[in-house]
Amino acid sequence: MIHSFNPQLYYHTMGQHPAVLMVQDGDTVITTTVDARGWDEKGESAAARGNPMTGPFYVEGALPGDTLAVRFESITPNRDWAWTTNMLAPAVIDPAVAASLPASEIVHWTVDVAQGVAYLKEPTPGLAKLKLPLRPFLGCFGVAPSKGQFISTATSGEYGGNMDYKGLIAGTTVYFPVSAEGALFYLGDGHALQGDGEIMGTGLEISMDVQFTVSVQKGKTISWPRGQTDTHWFCIGNARPLDQALQHATTEMFRLLQEDCGLTSSEASLLLGQAVEYEIANMFNPAYSVVCKLPKSVLSSL
Amino acid sequence: MIHSFNPQLYYHTMGQHPAVLMVQDGDTVITTTVDARGWDEKGESAAARGNPMTGPFYVEGALPGDTLAVRFESITPNRDWAWTTNMLAPAVIDPAVAASLPASEIVHWTVDVAQGVAYLKEPTPGLAKLKLPLRPFLGCFGVAPSKGQFISTATSGEYGGNMDYKGLIAGTTVYFPVSAEGALFYLGDGHALQGDGEIMGTGLEISMDVQFTVSVQKGKTISWPRGQTDTHWFCIGNARPLDQALQHATTEMFRLLQEDCGLTSSEASLLLGQAVEYEIANMFNPAYSVVCKLPKSVLSSL
Amino acid sequence: MIHSFNPQLYYHTMGQHPAVLMVQDGDTVITTTVDARGWDEKGESAAARGNPMTGPFYVEGALPGDTLAVRFESITPNRDWAWTTNMLAPAVIDPAVAASLPASEIVHWTVDVAQGVAYLKEPTPGLAKLKLPLRPFLGCFGVAPSKGQFISTATSGEYGGNMDYKGLIAGTTVYFPVSAEGALFYLGDGHALQGDGEIMGTGLEISMDVQFTVSVQKGKTISWPRGQTDTHWFCIGNARPLDQALQHATTEMFRLLQEDCGLTSSEASLLLGQAVEYEIANMFNPAYSVVCKLPKSVLSSL
Amino acid sequence: MIHSFNPQLYYHTMGQHPAVLMVQDGDTVITTTVDARGWDEKGESAAARGNPMTGPFYVEGALPGDTLAVRFESITPNRDWAWTTNMLAPAVIDPAVAASLPASEIVHWTVDVAQGVAYLKEPTPGLAKLKLPLRPFLGCFGVAPSKGQFISTATSGEYGGNMDYKGLIAGTTVYFPVSAEGALFYLGDGHALQGDGEIMGTGLEISMDVQFTVSVQKGKTISWPRGQTDTHWFCIGNARPLDQALQHATTEMFRLLQEDCGLTSSEASLLLGQAVEYEIANMFNPAYSVVCKLPKSVLSSL
Repeated sequence: MIHSFNPQLYYHTMGQHPAVLMVQDGDTVITTTVDARGWDEKGESAAARGNPMTGPFYVEGALPGDTLAVRFESITPNRDWAWTTNMLAPAVIDPAVAASLPASEIVHWTVDVAQGVAYLKEPTPGLAKLKLPLRPFLGCFGVAPSKGQFISTATSGEYGGNMDYKGLIAGTTVYFPVSAEGALFYLGDGHALQGDGEIMGTGLEISMDVQFTVSVQKGKTISWPRGQTDTHWFCIGNARPLDQALQHATTEMFRLLQEDCGLTSSEASLLLGQAVEYEIANMFNPAYSVVCKLPKSVLSSL
Repeated sequence: MIHSFNPQLYYHTMGQHPAVLMVQDGDTVITTTVDARGWDEKGESAAARGNPMTGPFYVEGALPGDTLAVRFESITPNRDWAWTTNMLAPAVIDPAVAASLPASEIVHWTVDVAQGVAYLKEPTPGLAKLKLPLRPFLGCFGVAPSKGQFISTATSGEYGGNMDYKGLIAGTTVYFPVSAEGALFYLGDGHALQGDGEIMGTGLEISMDVQFTVSVQKGKTISWPRGQTDTHWFCIGNARPLDQALQHATTEMFRLLQEDCGLTSSEASLLLGQAVEYEIANMFNPAYSVVCKLPKSVLSSL
Repeated sequence: MIHSFNPQLYYHTMGQHPAVLMVQDGDTVITTTVDARGWDEKGESAAARGNPMTGPFYVEGALPGDTLAVRFESITPNRDWAWTTNMLAPAVIDPAVAASLPASEIVHWTVDVAQGVAYLKEPTPGLAKLKLPLRPFLGCFGVAPSKGQFISTATSGEYGGNMDYKGLIAGTTVYFPVSAEGALFYLGDGHALQGDGEIMGTGLEISMDVQFTVSVQKGKTISWPRGQTDTHWFCIGNARPLDQALQHATTEMFRLLQEDCGLTSSEASLLLGQAVEYEIANMFNPAYSVVCKLPKSVLSSL
Repeated sequence: MIHSFNPQLYYHTMGQHPAVLMVQDGDTVITTTVDARGWDEKGESAAARGNPMTGPFYVEGALPGDTLAVRFESITPNRDWAWTTNMLAPAVIDPAVAASLPASEIVHWTVDVAQGVAYLKEPTPGLAKLKLPLRPFLGCFGVAPSKGQFISTATSGEYGGNMDYKGLIAGTTVYFPVSAEGALFYLGDGHALQGDGEIMGTGLEISMDVQFTVSVQKGKTISWPRGQTDTHWFCIGNARPLDQALQHATTEMFRLLQEDCGLTSSEASLLLGQAVEYEIANMFNPAYSVVCKLPKSVLSSL
């Protein structure tokens, strides 16, 4: 079944808020998200700033200990402009250089979905010709966290959240550990494109039209968000500092190889040691995010 | 001029050791390196373990404050086997899981240079069909460090060293800040292939035939190793933890964009924020290594 | 007014749960806490494990932007035994050594409040004579966090929480930033004594009789928990890794010296640089805790 | 035997430089050190800046694998002024606050050895009455590092170096792992006093008269600097970030308790868990330093 859902309210924490819609295992939802400051497709303020979320969607049959799979069929900017900051975040540069920089300001970009590119609305001379290809994704999505917690959409954890991983584009399926009845799926914080690490603290912040399909993997238990694209399996670790985020992501992939692929700890180590890829998703949010990836071509060759 | 150099001794520190060869700006050197344990192309022990280095090569005209460019024309395994460990390093997984793993052991791989693949000599069932493409590079190379220091080839710094970055394959040019007269270039620690992060603490450790060409950029001063491939510019930061390695790499790229490309701090931020790519080179050595990259296609479009 | 409060239920998150008692600015509360596993003064299970909290107490007049002061008049073990683990946590030792250790087990201690000492119930030969002085404190307490969050009592933040700081003994006054109407004060996780860092992951875990007095500082805004003892002012930072916890604590003390003592940034730096003291409260919980201290004798000499 | 040694040259790296004096096991040396910028007791420049070292002293009989004990009988400022910076280092405060601070400048202090106090030469109003008690110690000392390395006196490691630990006052005995024939002991970088963490990047930098006595513990092997005062045993870990420095220090103390005191891993854990104390020695240098301490009173009670 396909649901068209028009959000009326937005949450700034992920937790066991009342569901805005009940859906079945296998259902598809078509909905919209506002941008990180709560501005919608018309540029009007629909919610307070700070990653307001569409949802939560209650998925029938999802119980703690299960896994929720979310496949994104489409993530499309629904307006023709985005905003970013314009100065690197202090955390990503040497402290003495960080101290020398001017304050960050908001700048606006034109987002041309038809052409698939973005460019600065008022470029300075050095970037007068800059055109970057769109690669729309959602910065923040996930399920209700464990232990009845309600956690700010500024951060992330085992339940997903504000991971700001540029790889989570349409066509990707993401898996979350379910900690609450119905899983309670939230989504928002669209970016028309972004570099690794979200090192200015923003991607091209924009409102989105989104279509996704949920399914429940009964009795399948995972510890951190996992996912697959056409080419890769991946696991996401969210923590500070980067070292620990990487540890979580690698540990989850190590588990995947042993539990799902039947490798021994030595085999999983040998494979990861020589074939692993990492991406730094964000080094800006309260929890940083690191992605541990393995090419499907390597796995299928086994 | 092309020099064929057959190493007779190997150093385990990078510093102002006596030069083994004097070369001119623009000269090419053809030489060999032994593997991380000192085993040469015949599998004989030619040096003590611990990243023994070929060199140092004294480059005429290189003085502190200059930059040394090293272009690798070829890096080719010169024997048909390599070795690795077989268990993930404790630093890359959650401590409780690390504590549950068996001790790491040495395993051997067949390296078929003609076919361009490597596979385990005695594979266990789960990896019976594993064949990985070769991607040979040098794990450890660089110049004499600043302040008259002699630093173990176990680690790395502004001068290069044991960075274990899998991207440093033939065709790459790497730039180092010169801190001693003649720069004093060292190289070794060949890997037939490796995943990101060197997360088992080893790539496919192997001896190499290497050809490289040096050139001096007079009066050009950089702070960290930089480089270019056909597709990217990159800067390498070496430090613990990952956060700080990333800060160094990003700061150096930020400087490159301002000093070499004439961008303002805001323009450099906007560009990096939306187009930067990172690679985690190693999270095993005393200093971790992170690589900050920017596609040449983006830079050339400006 | 003095309230005697006998808890009937316990929360495992800190957030805007319904208050168990409304108190006035200046009121005193006499109550009890169960231990980290929910065992009460009789050794009976009164709550699920995981730092069950007594409270929340609603303090009339406390509003977001105010500061809540809590003075502990007494914190006294109300049973004659405590438990700990018996093996260092992996995070506090080198990974290779951590991997070599046996699994941690629970051991029991005799707590003699009259004599003011604790000793192992079944000591092994090496610790047969060990007697340690009691120094009872609460490991976890604080107020409802900001943004409507409900956060597990496993961790800590600006609102306090599971800081496990051994300095928070009777006689101490602690200040919290108020983020919810009534502040909503929680307390629990008593330790009869503990070393720095909570490096086994436990202090001598025990149930407590507690007496405390609350007061509201209207319009006084702070960012992190602060406190005072007879001898020191202190600020607590909670984060990972230790570096960041120390940054938060130092920043808060820096602010205190400027805002409350009228020093310039240079004066505050000079004073802190030569007189600051740090304590590592915990390096075990999801957020580590570092305490930045300044002797009152130094401040009063100005 | 007592040697009076008047230094004529100073080194800025610790390594196997030619010894300036050969001494016997048990000998005492009376000498002087210049300050971190190379200024001597007359305020004249005797060496380039950057922690110039007196030494190295060759101790007869000390071989790799032994331990060198150095007992400081006296460390006394030999001039009446010191200098510091005047602004907190960026690493110890939140990045946004760090970015808001003015640049650090040098300020001068009067050091009154007879009265045992220091105060600003030109105090601003807020610190007009500030007088701090002297607590003279050496910021940088140690032995030649392993593997033939020569390492800058800006940093520290297993061999000691620039630890900037305020606890290393006269009366303390410090133990170092010997890595070179004769141990090769260096010393310098005196501080008339300093807070924890060296958080401005300087203590009260000053030249010193020093008397110390060396002894060799044959066949005793340690991994990190250890020491004892009248009241405590301690171990120092030097690394970035703080977490890892703490891990090294704790691991060394854990080893001390097992190897020297005969405790099991569980006994050592129980003791450390409830009685350990930490100090943050420096969070400014390339390697941070954390000290793990245990009261002698606890150890002697066993």
